[in-house]
Amino acid sequence: MDEFQRIDAYWRAANYLSVGQIYLLDNPLLEEPLRPEHIKPRLLGHWGTTPGLTFCFAHLNRIITERDQDMIYIAGPGHGGPAAVAHAWLEGTYSRRYPQVSQDAAGMRRLFRQFSFPGGIPSHVAPEVPGSIHEGGELGYSLAHAFGAAFDNPHLVVACVVGDGEAETGPLAASWHSNKFLDVARDGVVLPILHLNGYKIANPTVLARIPEAELVALMQGYGYRPHVVAGDDPALMHPLMARTLDTVFEEIAAYKAGDADRLPMIVLRTPKGWTGPARVDGVPVEGTWRAHQVPLSTVRENPEHLAMLEGWLRSYRPEELFDAAGRPVAAVLDTVPAGTRRMSASPHANGGQLLRPLVLPDFRDYAVKVEAPAARSSEPTRVLGGFLRDVITANPDTFRLLGPDETASNRLSAVFEATDRAWSAQTLPTDEHLGPGGRVMEVLSEHLCQGWLEGYLLTGRHGLFNCYEAFIHIVDAMFNQHAKWLEASQKIGWRAPVASLNYLLSSHVWRQDHNGFSHQDPGFLDVVMNKKASVVRVYLPPDANTLLSTADHCLRSRDYVNVIVAGKQPVLDLFPMDEAVAHCARGLGLVEWACTDAGAEPDVVLACAGDVPTLETLAAAALLREHLPELRVRVVNVVDLMRLQPSSEHPHGMPDAEFDTVFTTDKPIIFNFHGYPWLIHRLTYRRHGHANLHVRGYKEEGTTTTPFDMAMLNDIDRFHLVMDVIDRVPHLAGRAAHLRQRMADARLHARAHTREFGEDPVEIRDRTWPR
Amino acid sequence: MDEFQRIDAYWRAANYLSVGQIYLLDNPLLEEPLRPEHIKPRLLGHWGTTPGLTFCFAHLNRIITERDQDMIYIAGPGHGGPAAVAHAWLEGTYSRRYPQVSQDAAGMRRLFRQFSFPGGIPSHVAPEVPGSIHEGGELGYSLAHAFGAAFDNPHLVVACVVGDGEAETGPLAASWHSNKFLDVARDGVVLPILHLNGYKIANPTVLARIPEAELVALMQGYGYRPHVVAGDDPALMHPLMARTLDTVFEEIAAYKAGDADRLPMIVLRTPKGWTGPARVDGVPVEGTWRAHQVPLSTVRENPEHLAMLEGWLRSYRPEELFDAAGRPVAAVLDTVPAGTRRMSASPHANGGQLLRPLVLPDFRDYAVKVEAPAARSSEPTRVLGGFLRDVITANPDTFRLLGPDETASNRLSAVFEATDRAWSAQTLPTDEHLGPGGRVMEVLSEHLCQGWLEGYLLTGRHGLFNCYEAFIHIVDAMFNQHAKWLEASQKIGWRAPVASLNYLLSSHVWRQDHNGFSHQDPGFLDVVMNKKASVVRVYLPPDANTLLSTADHCLRSRDYVNVIVAGKQPVLDLFPMDEAVAHCARGLGLVEWACTDAGAEPDVVLACAGDVPTLETLAAAALLREHLPELRVRVVNVVDLMRLQPSSEHPHGMPDAEFDTVFTTDKPIIFNFHGYPWLIHRLTYRRHGHANLHVRGYKEEGTTTTPFDMAMLNDIDRFHLVMDVIDRVPHLAGRAAHLRQRMADARLHARAHTREFGEDPVEIRDRTWPR
Repeated sequence: MDEFQRIDAYWRAANYLSVGQIYLLDNPLLEEPLRPEHIKPRLLGHWGTTPGLTFCFAHLNRIITERDQDMIYIAGPGHGGPAAVAHAWLEGTYSRRYPQVSQDAAGMRRLFRQFSFPGGIPSHVAPEVPGSIHEGGELGYSLAHAFGAAFDNPHLVVACVVGDGEAETGPLAASWHSNKFLDVARDGVVLPILHLNGYKIANPTVLARIPEAELVALMQGYGYRPHVVAGDDPALMHPLMARTLDTVFEEIAAYKAGDADRLPMIVLRTPKGWTGPARVDGVPVEGTWRAHQVPLSTVRENPEHLAMLEGWLRSYRPEELFDAAGRPVAAVLDTVPAGTRRMSASPHANGGQLLRPLVLPDFRDYAVKVEAPAARSSEPTRVLGGFLRDVITANPDTFRLLGPDETASNRLSAVFEATDRAWSAQTLPTDEHLGPGGRVMEVLSEHLCQGWLEGYLLTGRHGLFNCYEAFIHIVDAMFNQHAKWLEASQKIGWRAPVASLNYLLSSHVWRQDHNGFSHQDPGFLDVVMNKKASVVRVYLPPDANTLLSTADHCLRSRDYVNVIVAGKQPVLDLFPMDEAVAHCARGLGLVEWACTDAGAEPDVVLACAGDVPTLETLAAAALLREHLPELRVRVVNVVDLMRLQPSSEHPHGMPDAEFDTVFTTDKPIIFNFHGYPWLIHRLTYRRHGHANLHVRGYKEEGTTTTPFDMAMLNDIDRFHLVMDVIDRVPHLAGRAAHLRQRMADARLHARAHTREFGEDPVEIRDRTWPR
Repeated sequence: MDEFQRIDAYWRAANYLSVGQIYLLDNPLLEEPLRPEHIKPRLLGHWGTTPGLTFCFAHLNRIITERDQDMIYIAGPGHGGPAAVAHAWLEGTYSRRYPQVSQDAAGMRRLFRQFSFPGGIPSHVAPEVPGSIHEGGELGYSLAHAFGAAFDNPHLVVACVVGDGEAETGPLAASWHSNKFLDVARDGVVLPILHLNGYKIANPTVLARIPEAELVALMQGYGYRPHVVAGDDPALMHPLMARTLDTVFEEIAAYKAGDADRLPMIVLRTPKGWTGPARVDGVPVEGTWRAHQVPLSTVRENPEHLAMLEGWLRSYRPEELFDAAGRPVAAVLDTVPAGTRRMSASPHANGGQLLRPLVLPDFRDYAVKVEAPAARSSEPTRVLGGFLRDVITANPDTFRLLGPDETASNRLSAVFEATDRAWSAQTLPTDEHLGPGGRVMEVLSEHLCQGWLEGYLLTGRHGLFNCYEAFIHIVDAMFNQHAKWLEASQKIGWRAPVASLNYLLSSHVWRQDHNGFSHQDPGFLDVVMNKKASVVRVYLPPDANTLLSTADHCLRSRDYVNVIVAGKQPVLDLFPMDEAVAHCARGLGLVEWACTDAGAEPDVVLACAGDVPTLETLAAAALLREHLPELRVRVVNVVDLMRLQPSSEHPHGMPDAEFDTVFTTDKPIIFNFHGYPWLIHRLTYRRHGHANLHVRGYKEEGTTTTPFDMAMLNDIDRFHLVMDVIDRVPHLAGRAAHLRQRMADARLHARAHTREFGEDPVEIRDRTWPR
């Protein structure tokens, strides 16, 4: 058996196992003629992409073995789940992770039966599949994940099959340019394999239907050296693919040696559903969109389909591939690498195994000094920047800061004292802080930031994504998929926890001085809260020191998505560091110095979450102290939004008794919230005091205007809060009519001043409030 | 004055007006030396991109005039708001729309003062700007909007400036391939102008820093003929741009004549902040990232900056551009087109002006016959497909159906009896329903579908976007921006209402048989509900006839975003058409035949929204009728989710008294919901009966499994609903323990059967329930 025959044997075995997964309940080795009862009652799965995926696996295995190459595999068309499962089973990894699915006939029967079966495994390349860091569901993120995996893994090659359907998506189209951010010295290599099988679900694909010269120009324009491997005859395709891969890996070696400045990529053009039924019921299937899912759809009922299925399975000559006990024969396994060189067993694809804790400087060392609360101001993200700078220095190979060209705008610029922005394209003298080894990744694509970071985290490293708050919605769908990956992974014993995905959302809804309405959307929190409590965390630190404490906590956590919302504009320093730590640990608590209830039952609770709402709430409390000194006001600040939920709903949830103690069960609560107000209702509707809760927040009013005008437009301003108190505390209704009118007048004055002079009134800016 | 001098005069005027908007409170014509009090207290806006935008305006105006070309302009870098405002003012359109901003010195003063000023106008190219269909906020959608505008506008050229920052985004990267969907006969032309000014906020841009040969290859790979216009000397750049545009429009003419198969595009390379201050405070500004926003930042305080600003403004020689009364002189206006040829006055950019109502067949003609409710099944989206087919036929130039390769999967295939999928690339014999004039747009990019549709709607046409429910989250951010556009437009008197953006979400969370967990996310509704009640509508028709009625209603509506969630799998036909119409008009109502409360006060209310939850609710009601015949059960179905809100919150909101009559104020309500359960709480927390409300819905449990198993995993199944009733109706607690156990056993049985046989139990599939 020559080399190509052995590769072909592996390929046939993987294809056989793939078809078996889609169709067979029993008789896995075809030891008897196929009968309807051997067939699954529901035929579910995707055949079309599968033979292309197995073809790549087979050939890459030879390269790995010959070159002792560290490699992982990302299947962009991850709906071809049978391929990845077959691969892991052939490599022995599947049976190691799932001993009941042994590498023999009984295990093969289970392998087939469990696929896309209730109580079994998903139909896609899900977290359950060893060797994967990439779910095959929503499309478009494979290449970004691949680059994320390659960063800071100088000896790794990430083979990434890009489906031609997926290639039509925006995120994938943008991902090709990731090569401008790859450092030849510090990073590994991504080998894109653009798999043109010609069709999506029901349509041809764009890249399969443009002239080849145009396709080649496109790939050259993206900065790659394209190699085309096209055909449908395995006897020709095996040597062609093998020779091409040899060339490609020579080119990769030259690139790594500094002798070439472009990475190669492969265009693989093979028929959709290759080696499957050519025609079914009189219409072509192989090579068409009809091969996308299940080419033979009525096998149980239709004897002709049953016979075709048997012929199809037998065309792989299983008797040459598996011994009588169902074990793959030596020829099949000949090209399979050993140990962790097996792509299905790579620790990079179970990144938690490689994860080392970050070396974190003591965040307390970066504290702003708070001799008296609310006496001075800091820019929280600027303070955080100093901490992140030293995190970067202390973790030169395992931490990256990502952002869509907003790191400086978000005032994290201190990081550039320690590092550059990653950049391997041309630089000019006017550029600042650009270099191939930079630890800050900036590209104007939230999709790329998210995808890179996901790939980086899932291969065992750490990171933080800083973003304008409104535009994080661009990656809502990616967040959803990553959260689902974590949810599923937590249920799988063998997946080691990975570092959390940390978002820092700044330039938020209340401070969009340059930009206005399009930049005002705090709704990402609502998206986040739809995912499982075991995965999501949301923090709204109100000042610099609480932000430092929160960030430290998030960077130490595992398997979560942490969302931190923090402003970049100056806000008052509220908590000395010790108090900040305690406040963050509690998650919510009283702002003692602003309270006038002296430990007794208050008349009203002013609650707040978020820096600007907290500022306005404290200002309102000061106004109340000044004008209604006898009123007992309790001020509560919420850092950890999850504390508001019942403890039955979230691990951070506050027990009812404790919640009742803080918020009372019968006093009015005026809650000033950073985001859309109903989120607070959603979190608290089961609380005893909920009927007394009145929430202010962003109600979709905004434009390019001053900060205080923004607050007024949405009724979260201090004056309106005082009016809310007067309206809701029963004994004030009559007594405080005069004060209420003064507050209303103050709003009119502020509005008029703002419109005349284009700035907030002086007394609001300079004299925040008497303390 | 020669032609280039006149173009230059226009350009200088537009630049002068742009700088004035960013800086000046007063002294608009520089009639006296600039003093600090002439300067705005807050300097806000974006200069960097502005001179490039005005340069393009100036040159395109000449083309329009010379060729009598119908053209609109899309400013991808729409944060360069001053440019578009200046253009509209010079063309006289601004003063027409806003008479107080007259085309004279007083108007110029207002023009300057209002920009980015409280009570004034936004800093971006917002809906307030005449001539725009494209907000300059979130980036990446300009080219998709441009193609959307060009579809079915055969004589229109859409000039689209693509910023090089924006070009890094995924949606923009994918949009280049829109040319494969353009029909030379039926559609207009898009002229992309890739504006390389080299920098984003703080970083260089990728496309400005790759070798020019690579950039040219990239554009050729995208299928265009690139023309490079590069330089910084206006004396050279004017003739170069003019000559290039002449060539480009000859090429466009050849393309329209069928003599060329590629559209041209322009690469325009000019310095960021061109013609602005070269150096400020010792560092280079023009041509660098420092020119992004406000090049001179302390003009009021710093006399040197003040002098530089005056020099900068005077460098445009305003005395040559405006007469003593502040009116633009003839030379400036020489290249300005007339009437609706002015891009700022194009009716295409105020599409509601061109909007004609759809010719709609009577949707009742497509009704499924319902002789008895719940006796037979239909696939709702398949039924809708017939209606949409005839909508397409009746509106051959003004309606498009869009989807990310899911139209057939979503079972709307009847449309292909009337039309093709739009496709201008290569076709093969195995393809079906592809052709350049197709009315169905399928590309595997939700971003493109959304962007095309937005462009199509905003230029006065109609459409519907069908999508897998989970993946509509991909365009959350685009939805947000479009909703904000509509919110803002509704406040602007002169913007005529446009057709609503209609989403049909199918292949939903409860029926992901092939795909599993990654395809299960009903959370788009939560995103939608954050936008203003004046804009958003959500419908969950439970069967085919209610879907028809809902779709008809949505297609007739204006200025909304309508979200319809409807399954493609067979569901029971519940409502004869007359009842369906009445039920949809009410928005929520009793399912009379399933109720056993006989018009009296019920013991329990079973509410439901969504097709699968409704099916399970009706099945639970049947079980209760069978096993607890004395129990008075009321069954309520909700089609229009907005009915649940208080009438104070949404125009569709049901008054409290009515709500109380339907839902009671004191009886348990078991609400079976399609989506995440807390959305129902969010909508109803102010209702009197809210404390009695118990919501079932998707709680993020799922995998590839059977439909009934999915229901069980999330406790929305009939058996669990019966258990919920028993647990919550006080007098049942003791009496129905036996039935409760039977229900629990039925669940165990169903689960065991499913896991053994891979299908839902026969009795659930075949005997849905006794009626």
